[in-house]
Amino acid sequence: MTDPLVLFMPSGKRGRFAKGTPILDAARELGVYVESVCGGRGICGRCQVEVQEGQFAKHGITSSNEHISAFGAKETRYAEKRDLKDGRRLSCSSTIEGDLVIDIPQDVQVNAQVVRKVDDGRFIERNPALTLCYVEIEEPDMHKPLGDLDRVKQALEDDWGITDLIVDHHLLTEVQGILRKGDWKVTAAIHRDLETSRPSLIGLYPGLKNEAYGIACDIGSTTIAMHLVSLLSGLTIASSGTSNPQIRFGEDLMSRVSYVMMNPDGREGMTVAVREALNGLIANVCEESGADVHDILDMVFVGNPIMHHLFLGIDPTELGGAPFALAVSGCVHTWASELDLEVSEGARVYVLPCIAGHVGADAAAVTLCEGPHRQDKKMLVVDVGTNAEIVLGSSERTVAASSPTGPAFEGAEISCGQRAAPGAIERVRIDPVTLEPKVRIIGVEKWSDEEGFEEKSEKLGVTGVCGSAIIEVVAEMFLAGIISEDGVIDGTLAAKSDRIIEDGRTFSYVLWRGKQELTIKQTDVRAIQLAKAALYAGIKLLMDKLEITEVDSISFAGAFGTFIDPKYAMVLGLIPDCDLENVKAVGNAAGYGAKMALLNRDYRREIEQTVRNIEKIETALEPDFQDHFVNAMALPNKSDAFPQLSKVVTLPEKQQVSDANAGNEAGGRRRRRRSRV
Amino acid sequence: MTDPLVLFMPSGKRGRFAKGTPILDAARELGVYVESVCGGRGICGRCQVEVQEGQFAKHGITSSNEHISAFGAKETRYAEKRDLKDGRRLSCSSTIEGDLVIDIPQDVQVNAQVVRKVDDGRFIERNPALTLCYVEIEEPDMHKPLGDLDRVKQALEDDWGITDLIVDHHLLTEVQGILRKGDWKVTAAIHRDLETSRPSLIGLYPGLKNEAYGIACDIGSTTIAMHLVSLLSGLTIASSGTSNPQIRFGEDLMSRVSYVMMNPDGREGMTVAVREALNGLIANVCEESGADVHDILDMVFVGNPIMHHLFLGIDPTELGGAPFALAVSGCVHTWASELDLEVSEGARVYVLPCIAGHVGADAAAVTLCEGPHRQDKKMLVVDVGTNAEIVLGSSERTVAASSPTGPAFEGAEISCGQRAAPGAIERVRIDPVTLEPKVRIIGVEKWSDEEGFEEKSEKLGVTGVCGSAIIEVVAEMFLAGIISEDGVIDGTLAAKSDRIIEDGRTFSYVLWRGKQELTIKQTDVRAIQLAKAALYAGIKLLMDKLEITEVDSISFAGAFGTFIDPKYAMVLGLIPDCDLENVKAVGNAAGYGAKMALLNRDYRREIEQTVRNIEKIETALEPDFQDHFVNAMALPNKSDAFPQLSKVVTLPEKQQVSDANAGNEAGGRRRRRRSRV
Repeated sequence: MTDPLVLFMPSGKRGRFAKGTPILDAARELGVYVESVCGGRGICGRCQVEVQEGQFAKHGITSSNEHISAFGAKETRYAEKRDLKDGRRLSCSSTIEGDLVIDIPQDVQVNAQVVRKVDDGRFIERNPALTLCYVEIEEPDMHKPLGDLDRVKQALEDDWGITDLIVDHHLLTEVQGILRKGDWKVTAAIHRDLETSRPSLIGLYPGLKNEAYGIACDIGSTTIAMHLVSLLSGLTIASSGTSNPQIRFGEDLMSRVSYVMMNPDGREGMTVAVREALNGLIANVCEESGADVHDILDMVFVGNPIMHHLFLGIDPTELGGAPFALAVSGCVHTWASELDLEVSEGARVYVLPCIAGHVGADAAAVTLCEGPHRQDKKMLVVDVGTNAEIVLGSSERTVAASSPTGPAFEGAEISCGQRAAPGAIERVRIDPVTLEPKVRIIGVEKWSDEEGFEEKSEKLGVTGVCGSAIIEVVAEMFLAGIISEDGVIDGTLAAKSDRIIEDGRTFSYVLWRGKQELTIKQTDVRAIQLAKAALYAGIKLLMDKLEITEVDSISFAGAFGTFIDPKYAMVLGLIPDCDLENVKAVGNAAGYGAKMALLNRDYRREIEQTVRNIEKIETALEPDFQDHFVNAMALPNKSDAFPQLSKVVTLPEKQQVSDANAGNEAGGRRRRRRSRV
Repeated sequence: MTDPLVLFMPSGKRGRFAKGTPILDAARELGVYVESVCGGRGICGRCQVEVQEGQFAKHGITSSNEHISAFGAKETRYAEKRDLKDGRRLSCSSTIEGDLVIDIPQDVQVNAQVVRKVDDGRFIERNPALTLCYVEIEEPDMHKPLGDLDRVKQALEDDWGITDLIVDHHLLTEVQGILRKGDWKVTAAIHRDLETSRPSLIGLYPGLKNEAYGIACDIGSTTIAMHLVSLLSGLTIASSGTSNPQIRFGEDLMSRVSYVMMNPDGREGMTVAVREALNGLIANVCEESGADVHDILDMVFVGNPIMHHLFLGIDPTELGGAPFALAVSGCVHTWASELDLEVSEGARVYVLPCIAGHVGADAAAVTLCEGPHRQDKKMLVVDVGTNAEIVLGSSERTVAASSPTGPAFEGAEISCGQRAAPGAIERVRIDPVTLEPKVRIIGVEKWSDEEGFEEKSEKLGVTGVCGSAIIEVVAEMFLAGIISEDGVIDGTLAAKSDRIIEDGRTFSYVLWRGKQELTIKQTDVRAIQLAKAALYAGIKLLMDKLEITEVDSISFAGAFGTFIDPKYAMVLGLIPDCDLENVKAVGNAAGYGAKMALLNRDYRREIEQTVRNIEKIETALEPDFQDHFVNAMALPNKSDAFPQLSKVVTLPEKQQVSDANAGNEAGGRRRRRRSRV
């Protein structure tokens, strides 16, 4: 007779096991991660599973209540004391007696204190670096004078197979009190990042401890986003964000590097500022969720190279000029205490590797999240900020670069630009016949030509164009024929519409007339052209490297990607032609990548390996970049290069870009490159 | 034709190697430790060897100048720049061309600044945890955007085969400045304690760095002894000692534990005190030798369990009562910075394991030094302090115990006792016929009956009896028949000599009449009897465990052992019978053991393994201890138990110990046990 077949969901891993095998053992053998703090004593409840009953034609399995052992003493005791939901079993204490389909529930919420659940719905298979191990320790005995700590190590070896343990210094002084407080029953926090490294004992708690937290954090130059994650359930239990206080030292990255160069204490001031902000966020997420900061035992950080260096206390001056040498490009393992982070004394920190001097740990995290290296199709991942970080490739080969887009996409170089806030224009449509616009503003759901808009917008006013909408404005102007393929606002249209007005030697388009007049100037269009040409040239360079002319999918990471309409991005030629269905905004992919690395140390190895394999392209050193840049100034470069886009948008007829214009723009590009970081 | 034979001295390791093999490679292959910082570039000079010329009948080797390659460019350059002594060669740059006998010199002194040499003459084969590795680093390159630190790691892997390196946090912030200061040439300090652990980069220096120091330190309850050792040559270049400032919190160990129990800040105060004293000693040894404290990169500490705990910042309260639980018994690896020691930021600390709650890391170090476990004969190792720590055994089996001797051997319970200082009696002879004594005092070379003694001693005075001499006084009194086998001062002798005087219900012996009268009272003899009985009973217990009735050799460690005459120790029955030739004082064996662990990490593994295998005997739990103790009160227990001693000393005739006396002494023992730690 063959052994019973057991199928674990949602992973789908399956195997045959002898009758009587504990379900926890079967899971472990198949590599299905089931938490267990108490080591099978039936007291922690972390190893709960759900047994599905019925026929599972697809899997060819008949699963039933009789295929699992009856409730034993441990489960009965647990269910009485701690409440075990219907259908739930403790996998350490129940055994396989026939074919089974077993669900690993994602909501094992033992700590009732933690009420809020903030999650992204995606499933991260867990294999955290930090695990909790409950052990019962032999009491001291004069006949066997092993030290208290040595007996803890012995119990961890006997019960959990943990050998060669390294012990954090602070535990030397604490171990005796903890053991006596816990009446020789304690929970050990074991941190094991690399399989090849010795495990570390980083925390020790009296009695059974059933929860430990991790932090995943993306340190952006503008904003910092933090997630508090249960390392035992994998759930995100609180999130918080704040603006980066380094802004007071310099708005953009280059000005912060300059600040360090000019001020002897500049580096330290910015390091202190960002760490204080992080401690504030840590306090926030803990307060929100009721978690104790001292239960935070593992942390993962990502950020662009300059944020990465300042956070770690490294002088970023070298990143301010060629050859843009990183102090460290590989992943960093360190202690939270080395970074003045106010969490558990033994908490560890992992920082993802940087890809290159301009392509940071944030790009690595986005890569980990989106996974171009995990698939066969060609994926383009773009994270737009002051620089665009671009990763392109597939499992076969991946390349990366950063392109000096400048701050135009963030609205910084646009005359009527403003940050995303109520009153800012976020959507625009221009009638190609009348050239009359309609807009939508943040805070009002109606379009400006709809009834009730005026009333609702009166208090807010229409105050400017937010960063992401500028793409839409320029694209709509192009689609309406107001600007030509070479980016010039067509002054002859002034005869047709009073929205086209003269402005010195060039023309402007009046987007809004109200308390404030909002005008799109020729220089605004030029700024967008320069930025989009830089982005597109970078992408094109990477496509050349891979010898491809089209990509299969595009992921837009970051806030910019969340708000722009991919169609307009493609109309303007920010990105290459692609089926619009495969162009998606992926939100804070950097934060999500950090969370993956927090919850599963295999992802750390994966991104370290991936970053090592990524071919780094330095756009400044590539002779083709300039040509691509010049060619990319046009709107869109060539309509025949966008067959997919042409199916959904009617592009204006092709024109000839004048040589004079091209020359001008190349000059503009050179100016920008000096401030590029 | 067979390959040339190469013999390395002083280790005697030998092997055959193909012609053209660099001598350094041959040494490495045979496990002969030859230092090399520059990795064979011929610039550090650390790999110097001496080629012996001539016939070596014993080894069957003809070694000559022609059997080694001629001076090459590297050696010539080194000899010109740095001076290479006659007969010396750089083993990295010279190759084997015929049979060779090669000396590894022990005096490779590259750092001329270090002038003083303080050494013990014993040869410790080196294999230190800390090595220096010179590397030349690739400059940053935009095409290969590996971080600066990552290129250091790469160079260490390429040139030195060092993989999986862990980097100390402080180097992240320093690496860029160091690389640029050294013009991309740096020396890395690599710390590798366990073979199974990943190596750590703990220091990085611009250019070639040719020296690194270690500290070996024995923290005694009374005195602290420290040695500064070159990790590259193995030489001790400075030593210093100081009294333990914890004395102000309590003279003996138990009173220090009481102080901790009674004062909330007691533990911290004593920890701070000892660490300050250590920093003072570190400053001393560096000043004396001209070494830089920041070049101290590795440290080894030993001490009894309470010193061990207080040094590490651990509350020793548990050691104050049964079951005498150590917080940690195994070896401790930590950072000097965790212990507030003012040395290199990355310096590591290794603390030897404790054997049991009363048998500390100092006893482990003594064991490592003397090596009972390394030989087949039965060796007894005794370290006498307030407690005697006793280790007995051979490669086959080793046992250890501590015995509550109390402070009598240190002169503390003796009425005329004083510490060893000028004027203190250190030697005594008593004429068995006249009962007249003659003495020698510290600071005067003549005996008191010799011409010139009075003159020379006038200024000092004869002020008391130092700890070690009290043994000699009581033994001489016994040999002269002044005290009986049961320890009673014979009052009938008052008729024969005015040195015997009545003192209440007992009698005293007047040892010295001068400005001060020094008298040995009956209670003094009793105190010595109690102490020696405790020591002997402990030893006897261990001999019983090993089922042996005699030992092959006895090592007396510590200051006490240095000053007592083994013969008198045996007359009094402190130690069992043994050929006096094999009884030796081994000085600060604990400090020497610490030095061994500092210079060779194999010794760390050896003592860890040895301590694990040592059987710990808790005297308090052994029913036989009491019997042994009572029996050991007599002087000496039984003369027929000392056949070897009887060959050199005429012992008084046997008497009968009265039952009443035995009962009294057992009571005395119980009193003492309460204050035993």
